[in-house]
Amino acid sequence: MSWLLTEEQLPDLARGAAVLGTGGGGDPHVGQLLVRQAIREFGPVTVLDPDEVDDDALVIPTAQMGAPTVVFEKLPRGTEPVAALRALEDRLGERASATMPIECGGINSMIPLVVGARTGLPVVDADGMGRAFPELQMETFGVYGVPGSPMAIAGERGETAVIDTGADNRRMEWLARGVTVRLGGAAHIAEYSMRGADVKRTAIPRTLTLALTVGRAIREAREAGADPVARLADALGGTLYRHLRVLFRGKIADVERRTEAGFARGRAAAVSFDGEHKLELVFQNENLVALVDGELRCVVPDLVCVLEAERAEPITTETLRYGQRVTVVGISTPGIMRTPEALAVFGPSAFELPYDFTPVEQLVPSSVL
Amino acid sequence: MSWLLTEEQLPDLARGAAVLGTGGGGDPHVGQLLVRQAIREFGPVTVLDPDEVDDDALVIPTAQMGAPTVVFEKLPRGTEPVAALRALEDRLGERASATMPIECGGINSMIPLVVGARTGLPVVDADGMGRAFPELQMETFGVYGVPGSPMAIAGERGETAVIDTGADNRRMEWLARGVTVRLGGAAHIAEYSMRGADVKRTAIPRTLTLALTVGRAIREAREAGADPVARLADALGGTLYRHLRVLFRGKIADVERRTEAGFARGRAAAVSFDGEHKLELVFQNENLVALVDGELRCVVPDLVCVLEAERAEPITTETLRYGQRVTVVGISTPGIMRTPEALAVFGPSAFELPYDFTPVEQLVPSSVL
Repeated sequence: MSWLLTEEQLPDLARGAAVLGTGGGGDPHVGQLLVRQAIREFGPVTVLDPDEVDDDALVIPTAQMGAPTVVFEKLPRGTEPVAALRALEDRLGERASATMPIECGGINSMIPLVVGARTGLPVVDADGMGRAFPELQMETFGVYGVPGSPMAIAGERGETAVIDTGADNRRMEWLARGVTVRLGGAAHIAEYSMRGADVKRTAIPRTLTLALTVGRAIREAREAGADPVARLADALGGTLYRHLRVLFRGKIADVERRTEAGFARGRAAAVSFDGEHKLELVFQNENLVALVDGELRCVVPDLVCVLEAERAEPITTETLRYGQRVTVVGISTPGIMRTPEALAVFGPSAFELPYDFTPVEQLVPSSVL
Repeated sequence: MSWLLTEEQLPDLARGAAVLGTGGGGDPHVGQLLVRQAIREFGPVTVLDPDEVDDDALVIPTAQMGAPTVVFEKLPRGTEPVAALRALEDRLGERASATMPIECGGINSMIPLVVGARTGLPVVDADGMGRAFPELQMETFGVYGVPGSPMAIAGERGETAVIDTGADNRRMEWLARGVTVRLGGAAHIAEYSMRGADVKRTAIPRTLTLALTVGRAIREAREAGADPVARLADALGGTLYRHLRVLFRGKIADVERRTEAGFARGRAAAVSFDGEHKLELVFQNENLVALVDGELRCVVPDLVCVLEAERAEPITTETLRYGQRVTVVGISTPGIMRTPEALAVFGPSAFELPYDFTPVEQLVPSSVL
């Protein structure tokens, strides 16, 4: 069923998208501002259930690309992702029937909504990562055979680049990253153009609805004086992201972060409130792995989410800092993200992490505390 | 008048183009091999006088882009510049009537000939630099109002990128260089698409013929046991490159070269045979300036050419090395390259050199020795 996204839903959506963004996907506040401004100026956005997309409709996903550390300081005007969409439409010689997110996250759940508001196109309630990932080949679209190319990049001065690497999505990422770095570290893209039938086959369905559910659960728990993490676990129980495990509670003790080759890379450590246990996180834009006392607790593609201890507000990797009191949770991902084909593209080995993928619900049979 | 380029002319053409390339523009031997192979496989190439191009004919220049130090080790297949041409044609929605060099040089005088042989398109006897320059905005086409965008880049694995930066040719260079670096440091391009009327207005005319003249003069002098540099000076007397000055004779004593940001940058020094005088050269892909005993003798856009002392074979910046015996000459450039608009784009200040442009024939009223 399609639904109209209103301004009032944006805070919940942004919060939920940031949880699913696992520390990446950009700043939720910035993303929210962009959509609010676009809705005020151009009207509400229609969100389209993937089952309602015609099999032969052309869907062109839109997104921002770049290191969150840069994006944070570079507010887009909102015209850039539309310019990327138009450049790709021109290349394809066909207009899109809808746009769609490529990932969940503070910015990239929002950019397609900005495009929807500005162009009148509906936004498909689905995406190609089911979380946030740092690289463009890490999309279920590509895992299941949709080529990312041709793809379009738009810069803030109206520049465009249309890149075509055939079926090689990794090469597309490599070239697009080079252009993005030259555009100042952030740009907007349109890629993985596909038909409605491919959306149904390759996308993670209903992740905008999921983000709204996640954001609402946290807010309602706060309003009711209840534990937001417990409410979140309940809310996820009925979704494709069934299992939530609390991995750690404590204070951030150390953050090492650098922006290199267009990514925000680094690691963080936290110490439990009793000083007895230690958490280690590794991230590349997004959190990739959580170890507690040296033991694996959650690893990509499962979600490692750092939340403020009291309010369960998600903390992105670029805003992690010493002394923050946090609850770190692991969330299981849908089966489509855990197949051997999917793990080859965005599982631990794709990040050169020395772990086999094991579902978080097996690594941590029940939440700690 | 149009003429057919034959295999027999290639050694002279390559030698002459390398002289005009002022140390850059790529290795003449590699360029020659590419054209020879293409002519053998596809037949001879028609070279078209710029006056014969229809005013409304679409001309698309083609070239290789990259640091000569890399190009030297990366032989193109010959299909890449055609792929770039085709990608730009697709973007423009129109087929080219001819291709054209963007610069003079061992590789870039040759690439359009490869394209001509493979596609059957004639090659216009003109170019947009009148020598070699390291950056894409440094073209008379752009100086006199032809935008470089949209431009296409093709990589060796069939990748393409079409970049559009509107009227901003400097921005185009910046993004295209980023893509080229990601493609391994060398790529092929099609850019500055224009009408025949623009060719007549903005190009340096008859530089393929000029290269042939230069190369032939040197060869014939060798065959006759005459001084090749004196013959070269005579041959240039009747062209737009009227003045040749011998700036220095000596041995290369020092070369400092690095490949950075996609360019071969550096400096070289030579000592005269009597040990009394010192020459200093600064280059960025091409030679930019020659100082003798600390005094300016020749500066961009005028040509600084390093030739082997005995045979007057041109030496490119990436093959300069300690101990080479050289004759360094300065050659004056046509008036179209010395206007204030042209100097703003590729004069000394464009390279952050602390000199005002002064014509070589004024700096050195007559040749030394």
